[in-house]
Amino acid sequence: MRPTGDDGVQHPVDARVRRTRKDVLRAALDVLIDEGRDAVTHQRLAQVAGYSRATLYKHWPTRGDLLRDAFGGLRDAHHHSPTGDARADLIGELTAFRSVIEERRIDRALAALAELAASHPEMVDVRDEVVSNGERVLRGLLSPALQGPKLEAATLMLSGAVLNAAMMHGRPPADDVLAAAVDIVLDAAG
Amino acid sequence: MRPTGDDGVQHPVDARVRRTRKDVLRAALDVLIDEGRDAVTHQRLAQVAGYSRATLYKHWPTRGDLLRDAFGGLRDAHHHSPTGDARADLIGELTAFRSVIEERRIDRALAALAELAASHPEMVDVRDEVVSNGERVLRGLLSPALQGPKLEAATLMLSGAVLNAAMMHGRPPADDVLAAAVDIVLDAAG
Repeated sequence: MRPTGDDGVQHPVDARVRRTRKDVLRAALDVLIDEGRDAVTHQRLAQVAGYSRATLYKHWPTRGDLLRDAFGGLRDAHHHSPTGDARADLIGELTAFRSVIEERRIDRALAALAELAASHPEMVDVRDEVVSNGERVLRGLLSPALQGPKLEAATLMLSGAVLNAAMMHGRPPADDVLAAAVDIVLDAAG
Repeated sequence: MRPTGDDGVQHPVDARVRRTRKDVLRAALDVLIDEGRDAVTHQRLAQVAGYSRATLYKHWPTRGDLLRDAFGGLRDAHHHSPTGDARADLIGELTAFRSVIEERRIDRALAALAELAASHPEMVDVRDEVVSNGERVLRGLLSPALQGPKLEAATLMLSGAVLNAAMMHGRPPADDVLAAAVDIVLDAAG
């Protein structure tokens, strides 16, 4: 539903507000990934997104508001659309995760979010929402075959393999390693 | 072999130098984990370890030298001593990894190292050495049963499950999830 004014008429200001927020938050995620989280300030984002600082302060009164919404943008990561073939779908979903790491360095933003949530309790629900959205498709693909601790373990292992390779080995896993990871989980699922 | 002077006599200065380096690098790892990598400076470490700044500059002329050696301390993480029972040994090794995360917040230092290595090429070999030492026991336990991409995948998955849980879910995996992860890999190993 599009918001309307008291007179029931749709106002163009709503579209403008949405565009402003979208522009600024896109810039915020870019700055976060390219320059680090210390660079996510009203001043820097006003510069990068091309709005006045006053406009940014109107939408996000504090730097905490800005950081929450900037990291919140990670919720909308691209996912694979399941086809019904479990192996192809799991490989497709891990490949989609790998792509956003390769193309957008999402791993850096996730590491920054993890660090921030460890010391700022108000960021914990942002992290949890990003992670639960990030794992949603994977968990859905695994849940018909695995339950309980095995489902938790398989979800942590598959997304963890991609994160571990990207963060600690300097590059996400190659195709044959991704496929081997999926086969290990499917073997166990019977 | 202990180093000796030109006169062939062992000098007590060597023991003193080793103790100084050990004290400072232990403090460096503490500061890194508790205060973040920006706090790892000659000034802060001199304060925390109780040495003069001049002494620190003599041992580590630049901040880069200090960071390299501070992160290098992650190489010496505690490992499980294998007993020959593959399942118990894999669970033991993952539990040892979980313990250093719970007790020393090693996950924060690893995230900082990953971030640093992504933008500072001179830190890549430090990261690679820390990771290869960290994975050594795990890889040794898996290699009789798995080879090639499956060995890579299983190593990334098991250490990745612990890292993923600690970083992105805010706590390392519970016992039943650790055991389930090991069982998934052992099922696939046949």
